[in-house]
Amino acid sequence: MQKLIKELIQKNNSKIILVILDGLGGLPIEGKTELEVADKPNIDSLAKKSACGLHIPVAMGVTPGSGPGHLSLFGYDPIEWQIGRGVLEALGLGIELKKTDVAIRANYATMENGIVKDRRAGRIPTEESRKITEMLQKKINRIDNVDVILAPGMEHRFAIVLRFPKPLPSGSASIRDTDPQKEGKPPLSVLPENSSARKVAKVVEKLIKLISENIKGQEKANFILLRGFSQVPDIPCFEEVYGLSALCIATYPMYRGLAKLIGMDAPPISGETNEEIEFLKRNYERYDFFFLHIKKVDSYGEDGNFMGKASKISEFDKVLPDILNLNPAVLIITGDHSTPSLLKSHSWHPVPVLLKSPYVLGNTCNAFTEKECLKGELGIFPTVNLMTLALANSSRLKKFGA
Amino acid sequence: MQKLIKELIQKNNSKIILVILDGLGGLPIEGKTELEVADKPNIDSLAKKSACGLHIPVAMGVTPGSGPGHLSLFGYDPIEWQIGRGVLEALGLGIELKKTDVAIRANYATMENGIVKDRRAGRIPTEESRKITEMLQKKINRIDNVDVILAPGMEHRFAIVLRFPKPLPSGSASIRDTDPQKEGKPPLSVLPENSSARKVAKVVEKLIKLISENIKGQEKANFILLRGFSQVPDIPCFEEVYGLSALCIATYPMYRGLAKLIGMDAPPISGETNEEIEFLKRNYERYDFFFLHIKKVDSYGEDGNFMGKASKISEFDKVLPDILNLNPAVLIITGDHSTPSLLKSHSWHPVPVLLKSPYVLGNTCNAFTEKECLKGELGIFPTVNLMTLALANSSRLKKFGA
Repeated sequence: MQKLIKELIQKNNSKIILVILDGLGGLPIEGKTELEVADKPNIDSLAKKSACGLHIPVAMGVTPGSGPGHLSLFGYDPIEWQIGRGVLEALGLGIELKKTDVAIRANYATMENGIVKDRRAGRIPTEESRKITEMLQKKINRIDNVDVILAPGMEHRFAIVLRFPKPLPSGSASIRDTDPQKEGKPPLSVLPENSSARKVAKVVEKLIKLISENIKGQEKANFILLRGFSQVPDIPCFEEVYGLSALCIATYPMYRGLAKLIGMDAPPISGETNEEIEFLKRNYERYDFFFLHIKKVDSYGEDGNFMGKASKISEFDKVLPDILNLNPAVLIITGDHSTPSLLKSHSWHPVPVLLKSPYVLGNTCNAFTEKECLKGELGIFPTVNLMTLALANSSRLKKFGA
Repeated sequence: MQKLIKELIQKNNSKIILVILDGLGGLPIEGKTELEVADKPNIDSLAKKSACGLHIPVAMGVTPGSGPGHLSLFGYDPIEWQIGRGVLEALGLGIELKKTDVAIRANYATMENGIVKDRRAGRIPTEESRKITEMLQKKINRIDNVDVILAPGMEHRFAIVLRFPKPLPSGSASIRDTDPQKEGKPPLSVLPENSSARKVAKVVEKLIKLISENIKGQEKANFILLRGFSQVPDIPCFEEVYGLSALCIATYPMYRGLAKLIGMDAPPISGETNEEIEFLKRNYERYDFFFLHIKKVDSYGEDGNFMGKASKISEFDKVLPDILNLNPAVLIITGDHSTPSLLKSHSWHPVPVLLKSPYVLGNTCNAFTEKECLKGELGIFPTVNLMTLALANSSRLKKFGA
């Protein structure tokens, strides 16, 4: 589909803003969903004039992680383009990945007589874990001709990036996890799953040995277990596919990392929604497409904090007029997946969406809620089609066939 | 999908009428769409009793040309079956194409010292252009063993068909456009894009030379530029796939040409909707399936004539009782794409559809409009599935599996 779209692209000066309220969709508690209790007069009024609907990030019943959720929003089939766990972990810890990298999720573990006694090293405090990782990085930064980058994470977690001098053939990161997944077993050996992974596996073996030697004296974190060996996917560049120069506005490193993977500009910014909006305004003339990511809606959902999630939606409502004042050709407000407070986790439920443009029917929904969006002109559709709609509504697609 | 359907076909004596109001769907101007302002008591009353919905011709956000729009209605995947520009142009100018043909879109152009000065020869008047084309046809009707057919078009445009003695291998028309797309450049050479196109390219070179010699004295139209070299696709025959003998009733040559490509009978007829209905009645006993094409709805939409488009819908409403009197097993009223007067062009918006049959829920819509169809029992679905629904509702499909 992206191939077809690429052939139909025509450029113009229109602007597209995609606002992602992370984890937007919800489920009722005491009869109402978070969207139904949120105070959001501006969003509701916009929904009435917009094309509304619900979208399905991966497939009916499938709960997406943040990676697939966002790739789908950007028009990449999330089943075709799977981002490895190691890559997502490294991106989330703020490492900028290159095409020559292999990324790995790592755990500190407690080993006793060759047996894994605690896979999480007693969930050692983040500060303690960070000190160990920083000590290791000082001692180990290169194996043969491979740069080694270590990034501290939460508690026992950290990420490892092996930066090779040249891009590796695909399949080079097909290495079995060394984590035995159960206590009382020895760690698994570093097993390349095909011949092109042998080169990476040898470096990994040396790395495990080096790290073990340096931490064997620690009380708890005296060994490491590795999972999710992965390469950066050879994914088409967003601007090449859509002809849109794109800016990612996100305070969390993982979303910036994802955006960078597809070639968006994603400078680090910090602060709350207000700071993000200021950043959008300052950069508005410089790009065609803006991905504005608002994280906290999801965070409260994951905590099961129903009113907290609703209040974050209300908070966004207050800045919506600032975005509307920019008068983009297309403004989309949606989420990357649902995170019902009831479930305290991501879920499979379709995500409400509104699309503002001059070329919509409008007047099908009375508010921006899950139930009202069901009445909308967009119906229930695959998330991966949303970018095509954005392009069409900004007059950036030629007719297909004569 | 067509392969599966073919296996399930069972024949009977039922009749299916597919009415295409070309460019049917619209967008609101001052709050209402063309369908919402049209006076159409008969269609609205039928919609109440029918299965309604909206269909998407190619993909969400993709604006279909007439070719893909109609192929999709006939159950052919419009991405799999792409009809070349040259073929569509030739069909539109009334040439009947054979499997041995290569069709080309041609422009008269003004050349000066080997440079294209005007790609459209000053948009010379249609009558002048026609005279030149007719003069050329008299002088050139054969190159080697290839028949040359020229068809005059509007202004600087015409079509060329090269009729080879035997069918050509596929890929034989893969020849680069000679139109440089910009003034101030020389025309591009005739470049075959693969080895099987060499044979055709040689004939094309000779043809350009012959035509140039004959028109070099013209003031404006002294050269030709060629685009859209294409072969007739080897597309399955409608009757073979569906077991339906089919009649196309259309006043515009392109739609008859498209219908003929898939083996429908499509005799030339002229006149307005009334003449088309009379033609339908006269031929009603002779066929199973009737594709009744009403062009003017689209034409007014393309002109941005909102009330004109609405009046053409109202006009159709008046003849609907005549169609209903024939009592077909299935009557479908829809369009091949939307043409909102607001956009003055084809658009990507889903197309309203009603399907009358004894086997529907009904009573979900109060009128035949975009918004009412959103409430319909067919939902929003790919156009390519419509034929299967028509077959099912006329009891022409067996059960799949035991």
